[in-house]
Amino acid sequence: MRIEQDSMGKIEVSSDAYWGAQTQRSLHYFAIGNDIMPREMIRAIGILKKATAIVNKDLGKLKPEKAELIIQSADEVILGKLDQHFPLKIWQTGSGTQTNMNANEVIANRSIELVGGILGSKHPIHPNDHVNMSQSSNDTFPTAMHIAAVEEIHHKLLPMVTKLRNSLETKTQEFQNIVKIGRTHLMDAVPLTLEQEFSGYISQLDKNIERIQLSLPDLYELAIGGTAVGTGLNTHPKFAEKVAQEIAQITDLPFISAPNKFAALAAHDAIVMCSGTLKTLAGSLMKIANDIRWLGSGPRCGIGELILPANEPGSSIMPGKVNPTQCEAMTMVCVQVMGYDTAISIAGSQGNFELNVFKPLLIFNLLNSIRLLADACSSFTDHLVVDLKINQEQIEHYLNNSLMLVTALNPHIGYDKAAKVAKKAYEENTTLEAACIALGFLSAEEFKTIVNPANMT
Amino acid sequence: MRIEQDSMGKIEVSSDAYWGAQTQRSLHYFAIGNDIMPREMIRAIGILKKATAIVNKDLGKLKPEKAELIIQSADEVILGKLDQHFPLKIWQTGSGTQTNMNANEVIANRSIELVGGILGSKHPIHPNDHVNMSQSSNDTFPTAMHIAAVEEIHHKLLPMVTKLRNSLETKTQEFQNIVKIGRTHLMDAVPLTLEQEFSGYISQLDKNIERIQLSLPDLYELAIGGTAVGTGLNTHPKFAEKVAQEIAQITDLPFISAPNKFAALAAHDAIVMCSGTLKTLAGSLMKIANDIRWLGSGPRCGIGELILPANEPGSSIMPGKVNPTQCEAMTMVCVQVMGYDTAISIAGSQGNFELNVFKPLLIFNLLNSIRLLADACSSFTDHLVVDLKINQEQIEHYLNNSLMLVTALNPHIGYDKAAKVAKKAYEENTTLEAACIALGFLSAEEFKTIVNPANMT
Amino acid sequence: MRIEQDSMGKIEVSSDAYWGAQTQRSLHYFAIGNDIMPREMIRAIGILKKATAIVNKDLGKLKPEKAELIIQSADEVILGKLDQHFPLKIWQTGSGTQTNMNANEVIANRSIELVGGILGSKHPIHPNDHVNMSQSSNDTFPTAMHIAAVEEIHHKLLPMVTKLRNSLETKTQEFQNIVKIGRTHLMDAVPLTLEQEFSGYISQLDKNIERIQLSLPDLYELAIGGTAVGTGLNTHPKFAEKVAQEIAQITDLPFISAPNKFAALAAHDAIVMCSGTLKTLAGSLMKIANDIRWLGSGPRCGIGELILPANEPGSSIMPGKVNPTQCEAMTMVCVQVMGYDTAISIAGSQGNFELNVFKPLLIFNLLNSIRLLADACSSFTDHLVVDLKINQEQIEHYLNNSLMLVTALNPHIGYDKAAKVAKKAYEENTTLEAACIALGFLSAEEFKTIVNPANMT
Amino acid sequence: MRIEQDSMGKIEVSSDAYWGAQTQRSLHYFAIGNDIMPREMIRAIGILKKATAIVNKDLGKLKPEKAELIIQSADEVILGKLDQHFPLKIWQTGSGTQTNMNANEVIANRSIELVGGILGSKHPIHPNDHVNMSQSSNDTFPTAMHIAAVEEIHHKLLPMVTKLRNSLETKTQEFQNIVKIGRTHLMDAVPLTLEQEFSGYISQLDKNIERIQLSLPDLYELAIGGTAVGTGLNTHPKFAEKVAQEIAQITDLPFISAPNKFAALAAHDAIVMCSGTLKTLAGSLMKIANDIRWLGSGPRCGIGELILPANEPGSSIMPGKVNPTQCEAMTMVCVQVMGYDTAISIAGSQGNFELNVFKPLLIFNLLNSIRLLADACSSFTDHLVVDLKINQEQIEHYLNNSLMLVTALNPHIGYDKAAKVAKKAYEENTTLEAACIALGFLSAEEFKTIVNPANMT
Repeated sequence: MRIEQDSMGKIEVSSDAYWGAQTQRSLHYFAIGNDIMPREMIRAIGILKKATAIVNKDLGKLKPEKAELIIQSADEVILGKLDQHFPLKIWQTGSGTQTNMNANEVIANRSIELVGGILGSKHPIHPNDHVNMSQSSNDTFPTAMHIAAVEEIHHKLLPMVTKLRNSLETKTQEFQNIVKIGRTHLMDAVPLTLEQEFSGYISQLDKNIERIQLSLPDLYELAIGGTAVGTGLNTHPKFAEKVAQEIAQITDLPFISAPNKFAALAAHDAIVMCSGTLKTLAGSLMKIANDIRWLGSGPRCGIGELILPANEPGSSIMPGKVNPTQCEAMTMVCVQVMGYDTAISIAGSQGNFELNVFKPLLIFNLLNSIRLLADACSSFTDHLVVDLKINQEQIEHYLNNSLMLVTALNPHIGYDKAAKVAKKAYEENTTLEAACIALGFLSAEEFKTIVNPANMT
Repeated sequence: MRIEQDSMGKIEVSSDAYWGAQTQRSLHYFAIGNDIMPREMIRAIGILKKATAIVNKDLGKLKPEKAELIIQSADEVILGKLDQHFPLKIWQTGSGTQTNMNANEVIANRSIELVGGILGSKHPIHPNDHVNMSQSSNDTFPTAMHIAAVEEIHHKLLPMVTKLRNSLETKTQEFQNIVKIGRTHLMDAVPLTLEQEFSGYISQLDKNIERIQLSLPDLYELAIGGTAVGTGLNTHPKFAEKVAQEIAQITDLPFISAPNKFAALAAHDAIVMCSGTLKTLAGSLMKIANDIRWLGSGPRCGIGELILPANEPGSSIMPGKVNPTQCEAMTMVCVQVMGYDTAISIAGSQGNFELNVFKPLLIFNLLNSIRLLADACSSFTDHLVVDLKINQEQIEHYLNNSLMLVTALNPHIGYDKAAKVAKKAYEENTTLEAACIALGFLSAEEFKTIVNPANMT
Repeated sequence: MRIEQDSMGKIEVSSDAYWGAQTQRSLHYFAIGNDIMPREMIRAIGILKKATAIVNKDLGKLKPEKAELIIQSADEVILGKLDQHFPLKIWQTGSGTQTNMNANEVIANRSIELVGGILGSKHPIHPNDHVNMSQSSNDTFPTAMHIAAVEEIHHKLLPMVTKLRNSLETKTQEFQNIVKIGRTHLMDAVPLTLEQEFSGYISQLDKNIERIQLSLPDLYELAIGGTAVGTGLNTHPKFAEKVAQEIAQITDLPFISAPNKFAALAAHDAIVMCSGTLKTLAGSLMKIANDIRWLGSGPRCGIGELILPANEPGSSIMPGKVNPTQCEAMTMVCVQVMGYDTAISIAGSQGNFELNVFKPLLIFNLLNSIRLLADACSSFTDHLVVDLKINQEQIEHYLNNSLMLVTALNPHIGYDKAAKVAKKAYEENTTLEAACIALGFLSAEEFKTIVNPANMT
Repeated sequence: MRIEQDSMGKIEVSSDAYWGAQTQRSLHYFAIGNDIMPREMIRAIGILKKATAIVNKDLGKLKPEKAELIIQSADEVILGKLDQHFPLKIWQTGSGTQTNMNANEVIANRSIELVGGILGSKHPIHPNDHVNMSQSSNDTFPTAMHIAAVEEIHHKLLPMVTKLRNSLETKTQEFQNIVKIGRTHLMDAVPLTLEQEFSGYISQLDKNIERIQLSLPDLYELAIGGTAVGTGLNTHPKFAEKVAQEIAQITDLPFISAPNKFAALAAHDAIVMCSGTLKTLAGSLMKIANDIRWLGSGPRCGIGELILPANEPGSSIMPGKVNPTQCEAMTMVCVQVMGYDTAISIAGSQGNFELNVFKPLLIFNLLNSIRLLADACSSFTDHLVVDLKINQEQIEHYLNNSLMLVTALNPHIGYDKAAKVAKKAYEENTTLEAACIALGFLSAEEFKTIVNPANMT
């Protein structure tokens, strides 16, 4: 153990930890739950600390040798080499101050170690005066929130949704001439092609990809430079813009300085909106996954038009059972995203004056939603869509039996007579053709010309 | 038009309205949305105003002749005769003060009219000093909230859920010896009886009835007597208890005085909890309605084990189509109740110090949930359950085809061999018996003895 | 009473009602709750029926004289003249078929009446064959949903949010040189100007206006032309596009034909997304309304920096009390919008195959959210923002007392020494200046030069 | 690596893992998110596997030596010794089958190892035939869900809520004679004692403790014995009840066999209800935490009636700042619980036929809510409530200044005159007494006798 110190006094810290007094206090005061600050956020804070050191150096506020130490340590944070030194919980102060100080302390001590100094001495690198120079938790933490969210959306979510969308498109090429019965209200309806049915899914995903992209510009705007309340107190006039540029360069993503820093600290509407977008995607995926598992239900006592890949035994008691498990994982993920969205929405509404203090919850839930959706789309593609098959026999059986083919008669005999045909066929358990002829509305030949499923799609 | 007056000054009011200055101001300042304070709340406030007048008289604070006037007018409010004089919106002050004043003003002016006085004169009945005597909006409004909620639950919701539950039980008696295939993960599973399947629904409803009953004692507790902040300032020491007794007598429901008036004004946990209970019922009903519409899907391209009554034409374009519309109305209601529950939960958490100012929203949503669930249960019973029929042929068809009957072999040949039987039958599109014999695991006779669906339920 | 008839048979209808058999059945089968299909939807269906009649005429499918009758009757629907003939509940079939048929029946009978025909005769105008020509409820209802949502957003919501935003901007011009204390974590922080504080609100609203506008293109896409399952069965190839053009012309809004009709019927992601956008606005408004009521809290025992207009007496028991009632109405509205968003999100995820059957719920809730937000923004502007005043004395009192002015010392004496100054001042209940001098860190003159609130903003 | 096998074929497994083929497959097919099945569930499954082995032995279905091996291995699972062998994700099959098989495989292989057998040989202990004997995932997983939830509520949540409640009660004894101003609508109201204010919090917690206790009987009911669909196929008639008794004995908690097994597998209303109860508690805690941080706001520019303990430095930029961080952690936890409740509610409504396949999500979220609430209550007690202090000077300052003391005049001079007094005092920035005398309503002596804050509580 060694002694670390902050403005509250001294405290013992394990000698193999880079963190300092404030992290240690937070460990003591916030033993709540199991959820720790996610890797994506630690990386993002590392990026920010690197960028601020570069800019402080360039603006002449930080000596080059100090800046270099901070940059070197921050690079280790970015790469995940110091992850075990970030033990703090989500359920801490609502500004994320303790995680910002965790980063300040780890980078300071790691820097001190790099020059052979004494851990905890704050010399030559002070966690507040140097690592946190020109910054406040109130602007660093939301900046890191946006960096983390954008990186994950860019590098994980959008590629994985696109992958799913493309795999569905590949499938539709196989499905092109499959005419099948449509179902509305779960009830037999008029026909369409399987390709058309799947085109609806692809269209939904395409729109969601657009929506997610539309939510990004708000997230590109960074709070850094606002410091404590948005005024930029204690910062150089060029600091905000230069740090945003530096972050854009490090991440190769078009981050900019938020035009209004007051809103950037006190509210997180960009996060709320992004979550609303993810929730919309979740709703689409739920519909798609549900459709596929219902179409694959059976194999003998369900709808059974699709055959889903048999990845694993489905039951510990029923031998040979195969279940639509990828659909189940997907629908669970979708519901979870809706739950996170509720929490994010409430949290986003609860800011007061110059600060919203639900920041750790907001980014924890948003990153959870992004990660779950990305992983689930990938898994769903690889382990379900690519091996999806159709049961041609079953599809044709239904198609030829559906009473709703009667709809094609509307323009010829009118809705009311067509309804009589359908009813008669249903009640007498016969075919539409037989009923139509029996009612004297059309000849067999006329009927066959009009009622042709393939022409109805 | 006539002139009414309150502590802010004079204001014009339509001469045929009983309301006074404060109601008129609220109409002006809160032209938000279409939702007006529901009838159930107006009735409840009438009950409260009657009870307080009786008690104030009995305690010697209000002259008998004044009390009688208030009681007579309040009775008209209770019966709904003055509903057009309660025009205020839900989206008003969060304490419901304006609706309390609306009632005070209407009862005062109606009382004045009864003795031939001048409307707006506040003589001989003053809205604050007499009708609102010993009261504050802060205790009257939550008291009325509880009265309204309990009355609706007692007189509408519980009877309607019970009616649905009983109709399902009646159905199960028809269904007693119907062995059918079970479905887990939407996939064919082992058999059960239709009675057993429906017994699950009945069990869910029975539990929900219990849960709703358990939520009532909290709602029996009335805030009245707390006045402005819970201390009971300006009230007689016996006032709170006596009013609760009076309300219990008027409503024939076991209301009591809330033991802690501070919590009764500042929080509405009883409402939040009750909504959580309604949401649980909604989840059960959603499962039941979904099951029934899926079991009734088809008639030719779905599961088709049940036949739902054909109440109305299902489609404006597809003649003869019949849809599970009662299930659709029910599931929409269930989802709506979940939405109201979210709003209630947020609102319930937002109290500050001595008052929660989301009261109109809380009771509006709770009454909506109660009303919708009650009406939907009744409609679902009358227009679906009582006329529900089974498709015996389809049920037997599935039962005899399901591969999961193989499960009965587990105790005889083990899980692994049983799995082989199921796979072989599935892949070769043959029967379990044929596969089992071909694999040499059992003789035909042994197989038939073991695999008997009826014995498996 | 007269007799009306549909494919289920005959039924009695009140002789003064234009509706027919299917509406009458729905009234009977769906006596659930009080919520009826909103005016905005009835108008939108009128617009659609007019547009389809025009296009069916132009395409040679509908005789001009029939088309003219339908157009004339639809115009009455648009103008609200026939509102009393649309009595159906939200809680009906999930496709809105019954409301579509309600419109078909009303327009048919009103058209019949215009030519002196017999109501219910379906001659010369048949509700299905003529009014609903080339349409299905499955494409008409979602088309009307989009028309109604877009009209309300364009004509009500966006103007009202803009009005609020502008009124806040006008206020900030009054507030320009008011330096005040900032508050983070509810605790005293460094100063900013009141203008800066309000600029955060304006920035939030500006972003929300953009977000809402970004949600519109999805809503411009109309399902009409998809008919029953999205294939456009029974429609002319040019029908979809021409009707969208016609609707665009009637409404003067840039509606287009949805590129994928399968998604347009089976999912309502555009509605879900729009609701997510409204929910984001609600979160912003909740923050703004909460800030303003907290800043106006008091008048003597709260923060009291702002003075809110005294619109009405605040209490039925506490004389002279004035409450932030506009803030309360606004925050209730915001919470309600969050509740509606939950319901919309769930409903949007529950489509099956070719149809989502939660359509009435989806549009009911979305229109509620739009209406409430628009009205609340308008009310908040007129009855609060325009008359908002500041309490200069109180603002200065706080500013001069805040210990967090110490932050300005960081760049001069470092964080650790600055912390000692703040602690000493707090513990000894003295000024920062006195503490700083006593600790020997700075001279009085140095202190005054550095710690200047106006320079810190 | 070694080879393991299941009904799908062979698969390689790391030689130091106890798990088998199905767990390995799940690792491959469900690489979704970071969330793994929580310790509490692993323990609960261990308890169940132990209990079933005992009962199978007692019923003569399982040889004693096999049973003993299973019991010994299950004990290791219970104690957490094999936790690293439970690597599966939450986002797997919705029945939890893979986690049930994970337990079956680990216990089988660990048992095999205990007798020196060959891992993966399934001899002498077979994961399905012996460890899973008489069981299905469909009844084991929900049984474990209830065991885990009840254990955590009993051993963690209820004690921690009680601890908080008791610490608040201890505080109120300190606060007994502190008269303070009340606040409604955030505005100055009539006085109460600090003890009264806190009694509201205690009352809320007491009610929540009762509510949680009322939610337990539903959770005591165990699904075990229902096997695949609720019929109890392949089980001994006494199995269900005996296992429940055994679990009751192992856990010392009053578990019983669920009366209706169909509902116990197909729905999770008990979980939904329990979550609704936790959400109600969350709403109460949010109100309490918010009140305390607002009452402690300042120290110089807020309300400042309470002084919260200064546990850690509050700001990385503002020296000496102390923030209500425990309140922030608590309110974040409360919001998160509301989010989990939304997800639980949706998931609970999505069962189909004989199974609800959102089980892992349901228990993951419920256990998260329980753990967060328990830990947050404990932290809030230890690090805030026990060291809470009052600022007597500030409390008295507000009390003596509040205009709402005027309410005491109502019974003496009537509401309208009292309102004039308050307005005059407010507008002229004078005292109520001065205004009252100036208006000639009362003498100074009369005023002092009537307006006595201590008498008003």
